[in-house]
Amino acid sequence: METYRGVIERYREWLDVPDHLQVISLLEGNTPLIPMPRLAEELGGGFDLWVKFEGMNPTGSFKDRGMTVAISEAVGRGVKAVICASTGNTAASAAAYASRAGRRAIVIIPQGKVAAGKLAGAIAYGADVIQIDGSFDDALNLVVEISQKHPIGLVNSLNPYRLEGQKTAAFEICDVLQGAPDWLCLPVGNAGNITSYWMGFRQYHQARQSGLPKLLGVQAEGAAPLVLGHAVEHPETVATAIRIGRPARGEQALQAAEESGGKIIAVSDDQILQMQRRLALHGLWVEPASAAGLAGLAQEIRQQRLNLKGKRVVAVCTGHGLKDPDIIVRQFSSPKIVKPELRSLEEIILGEVSHE
Amino acid sequence: METYRGVIERYREWLDVPDHLQVISLLEGNTPLIPMPRLAEELGGGFDLWVKFEGMNPTGSFKDRGMTVAISEAVGRGVKAVICASTGNTAASAAAYASRAGRRAIVIIPQGKVAAGKLAGAIAYGADVIQIDGSFDDALNLVVEISQKHPIGLVNSLNPYRLEGQKTAAFEICDVLQGAPDWLCLPVGNAGNITSYWMGFRQYHQARQSGLPKLLGVQAEGAAPLVLGHAVEHPETVATAIRIGRPARGEQALQAAEESGGKIIAVSDDQILQMQRRLALHGLWVEPASAAGLAGLAQEIRQQRLNLKGKRVVAVCTGHGLKDPDIIVRQFSSPKIVKPELRSLEEIILGEVSHE
Ligand SMILES: Cc1ncc(COP(=O)(O)O)c(C=O)c1O
Ligand SMILES: Cc1ncc(COP(=O)(O)O)c(C=O)c1O
Repeated sequence: METYRGVIERYREWLDVPDHLQVISLLEGNTPLIPMPRLAEELGGGFDLWVKFEGMNPTGSFKDRGMTVAISEAVGRGVKAVICASTGNTAASAAAYASRAGRRAIVIIPQGKVAAGKLAGAIAYGADVIQIDGSFDDALNLVVEISQKHPIGLVNSLNPYRLEGQKTAAFEICDVLQGAPDWLCLPVGNAGNITSYWMGFRQYHQARQSGLPKLLGVQAEGAAPLVLGHAVEHPETVATAIRIGRPARGEQALQAAEESGGKIIAVSDDQILQMQRRLALHGLWVEPASAAGLAGLAQEIRQQRLNLKGKRVVAVCTGHGLKDPDIIVRQFSSPKIVKPELRSLEEIILGEVSHE
Repeated sequence: METYRGVIERYREWLDVPDHLQVISLLEGNTPLIPMPRLAEELGGGFDLWVKFEGMNPTGSFKDRGMTVAISEAVGRGVKAVICASTGNTAASAAAYASRAGRRAIVIIPQGKVAAGKLAGAIAYGADVIQIDGSFDDALNLVVEISQKHPIGLVNSLNPYRLEGQKTAAFEICDVLQGAPDWLCLPVGNAGNITSYWMGFRQYHQARQSGLPKLLGVQAEGAAPLVLGHAVEHPETVATAIRIGRPARGEQALQAAEESGGKIIAVSDDQILQMQRRLALHGLWVEPASAAGLAGLAQEIRQQRLNLKGKRVVAVCTGHGLKDPDIIVRQFSSPKIVKPELRSLEEIILGEVSHE
């Protein structure tokens, strides 16, 4: 086993980063590509399906790939504090990497719209957490202004180094599959991630003829500006991570999807939650937003819009289910409480086992 | 990048497993060994420190290493349902692997004593979750009885295949460091993990002269049967994962610590929470139990009981902070809420930045 040193050390030659970079890493990346043959069958069969499980990053989401680069760059040029707007995952990641570097992180989140695990993370990692009485889009506008006026580094995905780092997920997929898959499906919020994947796949393809996937970007119906063709003033979805009405990288995302021969579609909250549940029943618990990519794939298959025969499909699951435990607790009734006696347990268990 | 297939495929020749094994994996293991030079300095300096961050497993804890083997064995011999008692992490892991295999998991947990993220996980992964009005120790007695009377596979760490799988963490450490560290510190609850590490290190050493670490096993003061020398009737600690009064593998753990030239000690809940906070301020958010190993190390150093000069120390952080977000939320006040206006934000942020 070769010592793993994180995405920068692993892929440095492929990243457009300045010499002043001072590597700050938590050994992010190197996440597993999990074969899902049974799920592929359930969705119709005839194709190979993998989940790229980005929940297995240090802070529990794919954001760590970009954050290691953004923070390494900022620290290398002497920045003392960084700032970001966040639906939660960026906040936790920025806070973790800033702390790892001994720097301060300031995170602005939309009040009441951030999942519990994410908020707790940002606080635990020692960030200055400020809630605003407004949306993610408001928060983003504000942090951009602040970073322009003051010596505070912006680490939202407007920061190009975030995208550089996030390209590494595309590299890893190509390395494991020995080439790009035919389709890549993933959730789209602020649209940084789909933009990065496309940059990464193109770059590898130019250098190595690794092939290019078609991109299936998936938004939530209540927050689908790229499907509607206009900004959404009051985005609403249970998938808080992609509850974004004005994606900062919207144009680039649309262009990436089109260039690839793919598309950006929307699915309902019900479809998202159903896919979240389904994935968990295959052993993968992801946060709601992370199930959107597969929910979109299932919809396209159901509507016979895709010919996947013999194809290779990778679905990116962007964050861990642990990020948002409440969504589970809200959907299920609290477990039964029984006396610690063999009899009472046997009754419950054997009754249930024999229902099989 | 070689395709990674989980701990069984990676280390099969080192595992004592039957031929009927049918591999069920979520690509657990292969977790990073994170260098912590700054923390080592803070603790006194003069030694090399790494954290083996087991929170980066599919269900967020080290339990996945053993569960892949236990479930693979059970499925291979045709078991239809598995059962375990759990303080939470075992439950989530058993549920995930059983689902991955299309089998049923039944988990018995002590009511009100399991962290939110863990309970949500077990439910999400589709387990039959039953709370008993009793302790973990009661739950363990009950599942042992049930598994003896009925065709339901026991997957607690009494199951020897759990220990086989958990050995792989020791192998990974030796592979990355090219030999065993001088000290390994880790939390001790039911004492399966420390037993497995010792088995793993010994096995590698016999075959490869990789060396043996001294083991520093750490219990919580309110649940320290191995330090007190007798069972604890009503164990109490904020570190719910190690809130265990009658460790199933207690004898083996004591023997392992002694054989290694190490020891088992106890730390207070305050020490545990302080170390949890400290680790997060270095970029690693772990659950309370997971900070116990390092809290114990810090105590031994402070009391000048260890000579670490020039030594290599690995601390095992067994589970992710996301498993128990409430403990953070309870300790900190809720973030300030402000109007989405540049002025109000600048006031807060610049005030704080200039305090630096
Ligand atoms: C879990 C999760 N999935 C998907 C996304 C969307 O990524 P992007 O905003 O880059 O489109 C985010 C962004 O916050 C996220 O946290
Ligand atoms: C996070 C965590 N740390 C430590 C332990 C203790 O491991 P063991 O019971 O094998 O001693 C557990 C067991 O539940 C755990 O969940």
